[in-house]
Amino acid sequence: MSNKPSIPKGTRDFLPTTLAKRQYIFKTISTVFKKFGFVGIETPTFENTETLMGKYGEEGDRLIFRILNSGDKVKKADITALENGELAKFANSVSEKALRYDLTVPFARFVVQHQNELTFPFKRFQIQPVWRADRPQKGRYREFYQCDVDVVGSDSLIYEIELIQIFDEVLSKLGLTDFSIKINNRKILTGIAEVCGETDKLVDITVAIDKLDKIGVDGVIAELENRNISPAAIEKIKPLFDLNGDNFELLNQMKTFLYGNPTGEKGIEELEFIFKQINALGLTKAKLEFQVTLARGLSYYTGAIFEVLVNNVKMGSICGGGRYDNLTELFGVSNMSGVGISFGADRIYDVMEMLELFPPAIQTATRILFINFGEIAQLYCLRLAKEYRDMGVSVEVYPENAKMKKQMKYANDKNIPIVVMLGDDEINKGEVTYKLMESGEQHTVSKSAFKALIQGQ
Amino acid sequence: MSNKPSIPKGTRDFLPTTLAKRQYIFKTISTVFKKFGFVGIETPTFENTETLMGKYGEEGDRLIFRILNSGDKVKKADITALENGELAKFANSVSEKALRYDLTVPFARFVVQHQNELTFPFKRFQIQPVWRADRPQKGRYREFYQCDVDVVGSDSLIYEIELIQIFDEVLSKLGLTDFSIKINNRKILTGIAEVCGETDKLVDITVAIDKLDKIGVDGVIAELENRNISPAAIEKIKPLFDLNGDNFELLNQMKTFLYGNPTGEKGIEELEFIFKQINALGLTKAKLEFQVTLARGLSYYTGAIFEVLVNNVKMGSICGGGRYDNLTELFGVSNMSGVGISFGADRIYDVMEMLELFPPAIQTATRILFINFGEIAQLYCLRLAKEYRDMGVSVEVYPENAKMKKQMKYANDKNIPIVVMLGDDEINKGEVTYKLMESGEQHTVSKSAFKALIQGQ
Repeated sequence: MSNKPSIPKGTRDFLPTTLAKRQYIFKTISTVFKKFGFVGIETPTFENTETLMGKYGEEGDRLIFRILNSGDKVKKADITALENGELAKFANSVSEKALRYDLTVPFARFVVQHQNELTFPFKRFQIQPVWRADRPQKGRYREFYQCDVDVVGSDSLIYEIELIQIFDEVLSKLGLTDFSIKINNRKILTGIAEVCGETDKLVDITVAIDKLDKIGVDGVIAELENRNISPAAIEKIKPLFDLNGDNFELLNQMKTFLYGNPTGEKGIEELEFIFKQINALGLTKAKLEFQVTLARGLSYYTGAIFEVLVNNVKMGSICGGGRYDNLTELFGVSNMSGVGISFGADRIYDVMEMLELFPPAIQTATRILFINFGEIAQLYCLRLAKEYRDMGVSVEVYPENAKMKKQMKYANDKNIPIVVMLGDDEINKGEVTYKLMESGEQHTVSKSAFKALIQGQ
Repeated sequence: MSNKPSIPKGTRDFLPTTLAKRQYIFKTISTVFKKFGFVGIETPTFENTETLMGKYGEEGDRLIFRILNSGDKVKKADITALENGELAKFANSVSEKALRYDLTVPFARFVVQHQNELTFPFKRFQIQPVWRADRPQKGRYREFYQCDVDVVGSDSLIYEIELIQIFDEVLSKLGLTDFSIKINNRKILTGIAEVCGETDKLVDITVAIDKLDKIGVDGVIAELENRNISPAAIEKIKPLFDLNGDNFELLNQMKTFLYGNPTGEKGIEELEFIFKQINALGLTKAKLEFQVTLARGLSYYTGAIFEVLVNNVKMGSICGGGRYDNLTELFGVSNMSGVGISFGADRIYDVMEMLELFPPAIQTATRILFINFGEIAQLYCLRLAKEYRDMGVSVEVYPENAKMKKQMKYANDKNIPIVVMLGDDEINKGEVTYKLMESGEQHTVSKSAFKALIQGQ
């Protein structure tokens, strides 16, 4: 191979600094998850094809990466299907396994498969990559991580409250200061459609109203007309154009709007409970905002719907989630209500880069480099290196007696903050000469003073 | 789907306790890697097929999982190849990507691709899953993690020394007390074959001598004869049957054996340097042992060869590694000497289970469960939960006012050590009643006393 090697489009190599920053995000997220009693699980990279197929709609099915059967099994290739252009059928004949497309369906499969080994309500988190045969483009990858946290087996609203606290704590810990947790309830959306007498047009109504800020009242009305909403229904929707105020004021206006509609009123009641509890508990940095048009993957959610937006950066939502009732039904177990949220690691990473929120310490792996002055000095350095490592400090000894310039360049390139130089003089006197790379300061101190110095930091 | 769902054979779901134990291993390993200045990288799950093919031998190629091309691309299926039984050619026509088979080849590709972005010597570690279409059997999986640490761009023996220290520190930290790091040098094996005048029979000679403990001198001689080693060569090999003593005694015997053979003598010199330095530095629990027959993937290594065995458990090697010189040559960059080792996470896990080395704390995710006595008490508990979580304690509030027995069972099943019960009385008096689940002890103390208690632990 003489060409420069490359990786498949839509995939990424993570170099040390980038990986360290990503792991800082994952670590922050999982530490908070654990404090709320969530436990980690992992599922295999590939699932049996039938586990995944038909769960993500037609478009989703097409985006699932499939694994070619190995060895003789490919002999079963359905050539007739191929010749007839029945590509899915052909694919099925040469493939039995497929790469994870998200963490939700494998989780549902997991819960059903292991239901007798789990304690319910089961609170799990999962941080693993997923794969989609999407057209790669800026910010969209074929391999990317999802960070999901879900609890299944309870319909208690306590979990909605805790998930809001988790959004708040994770993002505040990561240094975000201006972000909004948008919340809605599917029952409110259903109520709106029912009140208007357009029960089937839930999605159309929601999509149209959601554009209010962008296209104004006349625009939304035109959009509703385009979507074949009846004039009578549009008349009934109009009060939604004048919603304003804080969460409780909005709730009151919606109470009036949904008066007498049991589903809608139930949604209001749930939201009201959540707002009151969160008000009593307080949030660190997040603003919790009722957004009556929030829908996100509507077909899926049955109760609360969440989305998180960063207000001081232009970027789509960085987190989302909601309550669902029928997830495990796909695998034969019903009555297993669940609620979960997902953190978009790539977008959070981008936001943190833009706002310069990564702590500088993440970018320095090694704290001390010993300059190498030859074999005898080297063994002396290795001894000290062992001592410092036992204290938990990250230490390197330059591997050979190279020119000072080369060794210093290594420290510079690796962003190593402290360089230690131990010549015969230092060794004989039991001293340490060290240079702080950022300031250029150089000092000679006793070994014990130096040890105290690095311990204190 | 009415059948109970399942996962592909050879893959695993990791349930919370197992995952926590695995992550304890990975965390221990990576913490030590970092202290030696190694930095983490990640490469994509799938590589372009040509990056992997031809790197693992014919058998390896067959075990590589391939990804079926998506969408219309499968139309390029080479039906003629299929009909002619040219399965590899057929596979190539419908697949351009393949799952990572190990971490070594992707690392070589990575180093060459990013050579201008890296600082050399480049010290990287990588902990990621790999996939092999092997026949699944006990202890052998189709998806498993590798934990590799390598340094490329230097031939300094300082890295052999540091890798031995890493073996020692990681495994000692994990609680192993009786394990041996076997070490050899490819140059010694080459020297033996050269001294015997059987340069081409390096592998045969090594394999045969390696059986000395099992089949005795006569057995080895028979085996050598079977492998067409000449009687003259066998005569020359005989001194190797009588090797004995500690590392330095063995080295002296091998010095005599290899006298006048430059390659062999170089190998001896390298080993001697390593033994002396390690003797001076000391090891925590590991025994470093010269094993003149150690070969491991011979074709690959050019210098040191490592293997780690646990002495008090019956199990194959749990770690391995060595020095190589031509890895990046596969991708067009030569003169990039490297040395690396790999930790077998699955075997280490099994050893730790057998020897009961996992700290019990790993198995308890949540430390405190608040019993739920209804809405008002619940909000009170949520406030306290927030306070304790802010102290870093993992806390859950039971999601509903269920029967006490049910709530206690939840705590029991989840192995939660402390259950807190706050009735009206406790709330009014500002007290906390808690039960230690293991002993059954129950106490009522002031809120501040309880806080001090959980903080102190």
